[in-house]
Amino acid sequence: MELKESFILETWLKSLAQDTHGALGLLDDAALLHLPEDVELVITTDMAQEGIHFLPTQRGGLVASKVLGANLSDLAAMGATPYCYQLALGLTDNQYAAWMDAFVVTLADMQRTHGIGLLGGDTIRGCAALTISITAFGIVPRGRALMRTTAKVGDTVYMTGTLGDGALGLAFLQHKMLDIDESYSQFLQHRYWHPTPRLHTGQALRGIASACMDISDGLLVDCGKLCAASHVGAVIDYARLPLSSAARWAKEHMPTLFAECISGGDDYELLFTAPPEKEEAVMQVATLSKTPITAIGQIIEGDKVTLVEGTTPLILPYIGYEH
Amino acid sequence: MELKESFILETWLKSLAQDTHGALGLLDDAALLHLPEDVELVITTDMAQEGIHFLPTQRGGLVASKVLGANLSDLAAMGATPYCYQLALGLTDNQYAAWMDAFVVTLADMQRTHGIGLLGGDTIRGCAALTISITAFGIVPRGRALMRTTAKVGDTVYMTGTLGDGALGLAFLQHKMLDIDESYSQFLQHRYWHPTPRLHTGQALRGIASACMDISDGLLVDCGKLCAASHVGAVIDYARLPLSSAARWAKEHMPTLFAECISGGDDYELLFTAPPEKEEAVMQVATLSKTPITAIGQIIEGDKVTLVEGTTPLILPYIGYEH
Repeated sequence: MELKESFILETWLKSLAQDTHGALGLLDDAALLHLPEDVELVITTDMAQEGIHFLPTQRGGLVASKVLGANLSDLAAMGATPYCYQLALGLTDNQYAAWMDAFVVTLADMQRTHGIGLLGGDTIRGCAALTISITAFGIVPRGRALMRTTAKVGDTVYMTGTLGDGALGLAFLQHKMLDIDESYSQFLQHRYWHPTPRLHTGQALRGIASACMDISDGLLVDCGKLCAASHVGAVIDYARLPLSSAARWAKEHMPTLFAECISGGDDYELLFTAPPEKEEAVMQVATLSKTPITAIGQIIEGDKVTLVEGTTPLILPYIGYEH
Repeated sequence: MELKESFILETWLKSLAQDTHGALGLLDDAALLHLPEDVELVITTDMAQEGIHFLPTQRGGLVASKVLGANLSDLAAMGATPYCYQLALGLTDNQYAAWMDAFVVTLADMQRTHGIGLLGGDTIRGCAALTISITAFGIVPRGRALMRTTAKVGDTVYMTGTLGDGALGLAFLQHKMLDIDESYSQFLQHRYWHPTPRLHTGQALRGIASACMDISDGLLVDCGKLCAASHVGAVIDYARLPLSSAARWAKEHMPTLFAECISGGDDYELLFTAPPEKEEAVMQVATLSKTPITAIGQIIEGDKVTLVEGTTPLILPYIGYEH
């Protein structure tokens, strides 16, 4: 069955927008948003296309989770509270009702989890490859957004959660990890498909973190971006990188693959800096937001990010995802 | 030459964002927007893909003009003043520097013309088909946006500019109009590729128009949407439809094609309603915004849009573009 745009709107999209103030029932040329004077709107866009970010056969639920999750992770990195989103959906003629059902059920679940709603968007059909572009909106008290530009020499470098699981999950999906225990492989796939945007942590870090971003392209590449934006360098301690049990298994049994994945993308953890005197406050944020936070290095002068084991610089086979 | 994302960012995109407050130099996870208490943000998204909305060989300048123009037309339809936009760019490996140059030069021209700037976005490479999704932002005084839902029985139906030129321009590009005078064909192509968002007219219609939208899918389809949103019907007078000289030529020499194109899409004119007592005010808007405005029909009870010639209902071969 070929899906017409008006049918898609009525059957799936309107339900996602029914409680969104300003969405105007998706009936108008545009949506309306009114904000109080004391907040700023935080705006981020992520685009994904089948064949690049997921396989053509990928189920709608996983695609929704991945793309909206990546957007929410950007809001978390700014310390924002998510608010609503615009969805541009480019469907191929192979997107059937079952795919749309799964896609929309997952979006609806995420809307409930994060207290957001669909604001508006566009749908086109006949695409050469399924394409999704989401522009997500968050709210932050005026002047209190977390930035990448404000790391200072002497700050401690922290990250949330564990590193490398996303890339290891992708490696498993690419049949590069054959002898792995099933509980590990399921954990890694889940980490790959379902980013956990660290929204509560990001919000709690306002006024504590000196700089913040999310790890989407790999720790070293992303830390390099944060350092470049702040005109500083960093030393990251290899021994302190937080690893899941599954990643520790991979480190022991597949060291080459592990070394690649440790700087792979798709982790969607927060990478942030804070001055040493904020250490206790940072650990309180970890407790309050129920999110592991690990000190992994230090901001130094210069413009280089160096990974060290003890005092020896380490060279990884792969430093991250250059888009 | 394959274009890397970081190169694209540095070479082209940063220049578009250099004067945009809150774009943060395109360096951060998201952009920031602060609004005064007395305005609403108007938000619209349009997605376009090669093979559907333009040919793979299409020059970057025309693609930019068409996609950003369509977004600005949505802002015009809400009576908004354009403010900034997010650009999601999905490039194929066939997009070269010359294409990007032309694309960005046109965006920069449009930014100057409309007083807007690039706020943020995303770029991906390796796409199966060039895909562009723009989310445009406008500003409107609080509570004064023009809607589709507020047309009233007895209101006059108006439109700006002329009808059918966009569809005729596409017909020419599809080699369906061989014997046309070159000045006509150039005019029609220009109308197809370069939407003229009726921003000044839309802004001036605040408080005068009872309902408004833009004609992007065809007069009859779009008038049907406005009527459905307002729970009314409409009668449109075929003899009063405003035609360019080129369209009048087509009407005379290629009546079947003309009849198709009269309800084709891509006109990006405003379709609006106003009560009879506002007629003089509407004509003042036409003068002040230097934009032709023509009364083409009337809002009636019911739920049908009827095209009439004199008192005879007309059936067109094609009623518009269902996405």
